[in-house]
Amino acid sequence: VPTPFLESLESLESLVTPALVVDVAVLDRNLAAMAQHAAAGGVALRPHAKTHKCLQVAARQLSLGAAGLSVATVGEAEVLADGGIDDLFIAYPVWADAGRAGRLRALCERVRLTVGVDSPAGAAALGRAVAGAGSPPEVLVEVDCGQHRSGVGPGAVAGVARVADDAGLRVTGVFSFPGHAYRPGAPPGAAADEARALGEAASVLTDAGFEPAVRSGGSTPTARHTGAGVTELRPGVYAFNDAQQVWLGTCGIDDVALCALATVVSAPAPDRVILDAGSKILGADHPDWAPGHGIVPALNGALVTSLSEHHAVVPLPDGARRPEVGERLTVVPTHVCNAVNLVDELAAVQDGDVLDVWPVAARGANR
Amino acid sequence: VPTPFLESLESLESLVTPALVVDVAVLDRNLAAMAQHAAAGGVALRPHAKTHKCLQVAARQLSLGAAGLSVATVGEAEVLADGGIDDLFIAYPVWADAGRAGRLRALCERVRLTVGVDSPAGAAALGRAVAGAGSPPEVLVEVDCGQHRSGVGPGAVAGVARVADDAGLRVTGVFSFPGHAYRPGAPPGAAADEARALGEAASVLTDAGFEPAVRSGGSTPTARHTGAGVTELRPGVYAFNDAQQVWLGTCGIDDVALCALATVVSAPAPDRVILDAGSKILGADHPDWAPGHGIVPALNGALVTSLSEHHAVVPLPDGARRPEVGERLTVVPTHVCNAVNLVDELAAVQDGDVLDVWPVAARGANR
Repeated sequence: VPTPFLESLESLESLVTPALVVDVAVLDRNLAAMAQHAAAGGVALRPHAKTHKCLQVAARQLSLGAAGLSVATVGEAEVLADGGIDDLFIAYPVWADAGRAGRLRALCERVRLTVGVDSPAGAAALGRAVAGAGSPPEVLVEVDCGQHRSGVGPGAVAGVARVADDAGLRVTGVFSFPGHAYRPGAPPGAAADEARALGEAASVLTDAGFEPAVRSGGSTPTARHTGAGVTELRPGVYAFNDAQQVWLGTCGIDDVALCALATVVSAPAPDRVILDAGSKILGADHPDWAPGHGIVPALNGALVTSLSEHHAVVPLPDGARRPEVGERLTVVPTHVCNAVNLVDELAAVQDGDVLDVWPVAARGANR
Repeated sequence: VPTPFLESLESLESLVTPALVVDVAVLDRNLAAMAQHAAAGGVALRPHAKTHKCLQVAARQLSLGAAGLSVATVGEAEVLADGGIDDLFIAYPVWADAGRAGRLRALCERVRLTVGVDSPAGAAALGRAVAGAGSPPEVLVEVDCGQHRSGVGPGAVAGVARVADDAGLRVTGVFSFPGHAYRPGAPPGAAADEARALGEAASVLTDAGFEPAVRSGGSTPTARHTGAGVTELRPGVYAFNDAQQVWLGTCGIDDVALCALATVVSAPAPDRVILDAGSKILGADHPDWAPGHGIVPALNGALVTSLSEHHAVVPLPDGARRPEVGERLTVVPTHVCNAVNLVDELAAVQDGDVLDVWPVAARGANR
C-alpha cells in the first residue's frame, strides 16, 4: 500500500539512514481533520506536544485554531515557551521540588500556565513553589477514568482541590487520560468512561464551591468518540499517526505522516531482510496485543517481527518482492512519540523533496 | 534488597528527576570481573560501546586491558575516534553508501578499523567506499549462530569473503552475536551454538585460503559460558547490567550499576504508586517473557507493571512500605542500552556523592 510519502523515496537519497521523515502534506491533512472535528463538536483542541516536540508542528496546530499546547514536563513547557507559545498545560501531576520551583515560577511570568495535580501533597508543594509569582498557575485535578495510572477517583477531587485552593492556586477544572483505550475495540468505551468520570468529578467540584469550567480529556484513539461534557481534547499522536493507531483502527496506513527511512543491510535468507532501523530509532514499544514492531508498507505491509537496537527483522509476506541489500524502504514505527524522542531532527518532505529540517527541540526534555 | 548505590540517595538531592545515575564502584567491579574472565580464558575483550556511549566508561575498559571497542554504527565509531580510541570494530553489516563512504575512509586514516560484512553486495560496496584509503579496514564476515537476524550460515562465509578480498579488503575472521541467549535458560546453549558456528565458519574460510585469526562473539549472558575456539568477546551490557540480566540470572540486583532516579508523583490508591520514570528515560523494551518493565529494589523488588512515556505504575508487593508522594526511589531499567541512549548525561556517583557528569557522547549516533 504505497503512500504519497513512499513514492518520493528517490528524492531522499541525500539522507543517511536511518532517519525519521515527515510527509508534510499528510501531517497537514491530519492536523486539519482534528481541528475540524474539535470545532464541529464545540470543544477546544489543546494538542499534546510530547508527540512531535517540535516548534514547527506546534505552530501549525496553533494556526489551525488550537487553544494552546499540552506538555508532560516542565522542560517541555520551557522549550515551547522559548519558542513563543504562550498558553501551556502541563498535563501531569507535577512534583514541584527544588529543581522545578524556580522554573515553574519563571514559566508563570511568561505564559498562561496550567498545571495538573492529583494529590494533596502535590498541590501543597506546587502552591509553595509558585508562592509570590505575579500570576499563579491554574490547576486541573487529574481524574482516573479507567487506566488506573495517576489520577484520583471522581469522588476524591474535592479534597485535592481544597488543598490547592488553600495553597493559593486557582482550580479551574479536571483532566483525565483514557489510556485504557489503547487496546483493539476499546476506544469507544474508554471515551464514554472518560466523559462520565470528568462529568462526575466536575459535579463534585461544583458541589464543593468550585467552578470547574475545564473538563479536559481525550487521546488520539478516543478523539473521534468524544463524549458529552468534555470541553477540551488533548490528542498527540494524530499529527503523525503510527502503526499502533493503524492496528487500533484509528487511522489508515495512508494517514501515517512519519516513517523511518531505512536501508536493507542484510538479506541472509530468501524469506527475510534486515533493515537498519532498530529500537534506537523506532523505539521499543510493543504492546502485548500488537502484531509486530512496525510496518513496512512497500513490502505488502510486512511486519517487523523482531527488533534489536540497530536491526529490524522483516520476514517477507507471500507475494512480496525481495528487496536487494542497499535498497531503501520506509518503516512505520509502532509508537511515534518514542521514535521522535530518539532523534535530533526530522526531515520534512513536501512534493517529493526535503523541504526543511525540523529540530526536535524538546527531545529528552524529561524534567 | 538495597544496593550500596541506593543507600546514597539522600546525597543525590541536587539531581532533578528522572535522571540516570551510575554507581561507579559497582561499574568498576563489573568491568574488572569481565576483564579477569576474558584474561583467564585467554580471549580478547572488545566491549560493545553501544551500552554506555560514553568516553569515561570506554577509557576504564581500555585501562583494564580491552583490545579495543566494538560499536554498531559509523557514527559511534566517529565519536570514539574523536575521543582518542584507536582500535574499533563496527560489528554490523555496514552499508557503505554515499553518506558513509567518506566517513569510513576518514576513520581508516586515524584508527585501526575493522568492519562487519554479511553479503557480497555489502562487501563490494565497502571495498568501493574505502578504495584509495591508505590503510583499508579489516573485515570480519558475520555468521548466524541461531538468532536468525543478520549473518550468513557458516557454509556461506567463503562467498562473502572472496568478494571482500576481490574488493581490496583484508578478511581476518568471522563474528557472530548469540542474540537467542536472551531468554531464560538459553545462555549456555546459545554460547555453544556460537562457538560451533564460529568454528565451522573459520574452517570454511581456512579451506578457501583465508587466515581467519579472529573468531569474535559473545554477549553479556553468554560471556560466562564462552565456548572453545572463540578468540574475542564483545559483551556490552555487563558494564551496567539491567533488569533483563537479573531476570536471565546473569547478575544479581547488587551488580546493577545504573538506575533511574525517580520521584513518586502520585499515590492514588493504597496498593500502587506512580513514578516519573517512564519509557522516555527507561526505554520501552519489554521481552515477552519479562515479568515487568523495571525493578524498584527499595520496595521489596517491586516491578513496574505498566510504563507510559512519563509514568511507571508500581503495584506494592506484600510487606512493602508505601512511599509518600515526593519520595525518591531508583528503578532498574529493563534494557540499559536503550535507557542510556535517551539521555545526554549520566550522573556518576561514588562514595555517596555525585562525582562527575559523564556525557553520553554517542547518544543518538544511529548513522
